[in-house]
Amino acid sequence: MTAVDFEAFVDRLATVAGEAVMPFFRTTIGVENKGGKSFDPVTAADHAGEAAMRQLIKATFPSHGIVGEEFGNESEDADYVWVLDPIDGTRGFITGLPTWGTLIGLMKNGAPVYGVMSQPFTKERFLGDGGAARYRGPLGDRKLRVRSCTKLEDAIMSSTSPRIFQGKDLAAFEAMEAATRHTRYGGDCYAYCMLAAGQIDIIVESELKPYDIVALIPIVEGAGGIITDWEGGPAHKGGRVIAAGDRRVHAAALELLAAKA
Amino acid sequence: MTAVDFEAFVDRLATVAGEAVMPFFRTTIGVENKGGKSFDPVTAADHAGEAAMRQLIKATFPSHGIVGEEFGNESEDADYVWVLDPIDGTRGFITGLPTWGTLIGLMKNGAPVYGVMSQPFTKERFLGDGGAARYRGPLGDRKLRVRSCTKLEDAIMSSTSPRIFQGKDLAAFEAMEAATRHTRYGGDCYAYCMLAAGQIDIIVESELKPYDIVALIPIVEGAGGIITDWEGGPAHKGGRVIAAGDRRVHAAALELLAAKA
Repeated sequence: MTAVDFEAFVDRLATVAGEAVMPFFRTTIGVENKGGKSFDPVTAADHAGEAAMRQLIKATFPSHGIVGEEFGNESEDADYVWVLDPIDGTRGFITGLPTWGTLIGLMKNGAPVYGVMSQPFTKERFLGDGGAARYRGPLGDRKLRVRSCTKLEDAIMSSTSPRIFQGKDLAAFEAMEAATRHTRYGGDCYAYCMLAAGQIDIIVESELKPYDIVALIPIVEGAGGIITDWEGGPAHKGGRVIAAGDRRVHAAALELLAAKA
Repeated sequence: MTAVDFEAFVDRLATVAGEAVMPFFRTTIGVENKGGKSFDPVTAADHAGEAAMRQLIKATFPSHGIVGEEFGNESEDADYVWVLDPIDGTRGFITGLPTWGTLIGLMKNGAPVYGVMSQPFTKERFLGDGGAARYRGPLGDRKLRVRSCTKLEDAIMSSTSPRIFQGKDLAAFEAMEAATRHTRYGGDCYAYCMLAAGQIDIIVESELKPYDIVALIPIVEGAGGIITDWEGGPAHKGGRVIAAGDRRVHAAALELLAAKA
């Protein structure tokens, strides 16, 4: 894998996923909402997007492993393992909001080394390799860089929903809400990219799966941010995750979470 | 005002607002986040957007009144009154998410008769006159139409944040969360447009200002939806607002809210 081939390949992966998913976005016209038993556009889109990516990966890198939300794990002990989520932010997708994205992560020997978040409606891509991170979209081609923020009280926080937290995690999250400047909900994967872009200072979440977070780690770290679990360990296994643009805010948040969770 | 002139004028209003606001979107690069005392891009954008719209309205319709978030009320007893919010969804704007919008509403003799939601980053416009509603954007030119949903338990709900509700309103909102299928947060004005597009079944909010809601009423009603306060009265004064695509869900929600609030 040369560097050039690799970037072109990942771009193609994001493109085939977007082409598979977009026909299912905002297509409820004429579809009755009958609850769980009806046609579910997000499930159909998830399947189509992941199938398209798996086919391309297997044809190009047959020895690589794949971990995906929809079709389970294949060769997950391989040196290189792709971690895929065709639609991260299903509630955004279902409700027609452009805050979901296709997540494509690559692990090498168990550590995330490359990640892409692709939003095919806004035609934006956020890419990172842990050392640098880039944006491509309607605002041009930009380097992603976190902003500085020295204190929790100045921090703008984001989280998918206060409802994802259970028990002591909820108490800890509420303490974070009280300690920070204000909180925006419903960001999904888009929020991590906005943290990498210097728009958000801290993200606190819980109950994440590896495919929710692996692709975002090299983007956040590439933009100069820090992303760990609530104990300060690696975030790629999911669970309770905290991301921050500034290490001072990250340290203060870890302390507060440790006191409450 | 002929119908053709009017539509062209409103389009131009949305365009000048977008041109004034967009330079302030995602511009935190190099700006330190120092809390309340620092440069505030959303305030600057709000001022620029509303000033541009006011200037154009005054030059074109000097007898019309104007109600806006930023510069107060002028001739609010006129037959025609424009109700403006250059950036509805300031938290979305601040955090770089494309869920905010410019709201332009027109009241005639105290009732909303025309509304536009313009999202200049995604280049989408949602327009309605109470009798019909339209979408223009990357997905083409479409008629907006709510979807049917017969029961609360099947309904997908949206709300800006559970934190906007106080006291009994919070208990009522939590009862709605328990009664519906699931809830998406952080939609801002975009959520009302997605309700008009048949993607969301019900929106429950509180503490709204007139400029948060006037423009959205002709869009929701034009798409066949219903929007009222929590007692079933007119929504254009703000406060506690409920919007639904299907009258059956709206009726069930009013009953539940009356029992709890």
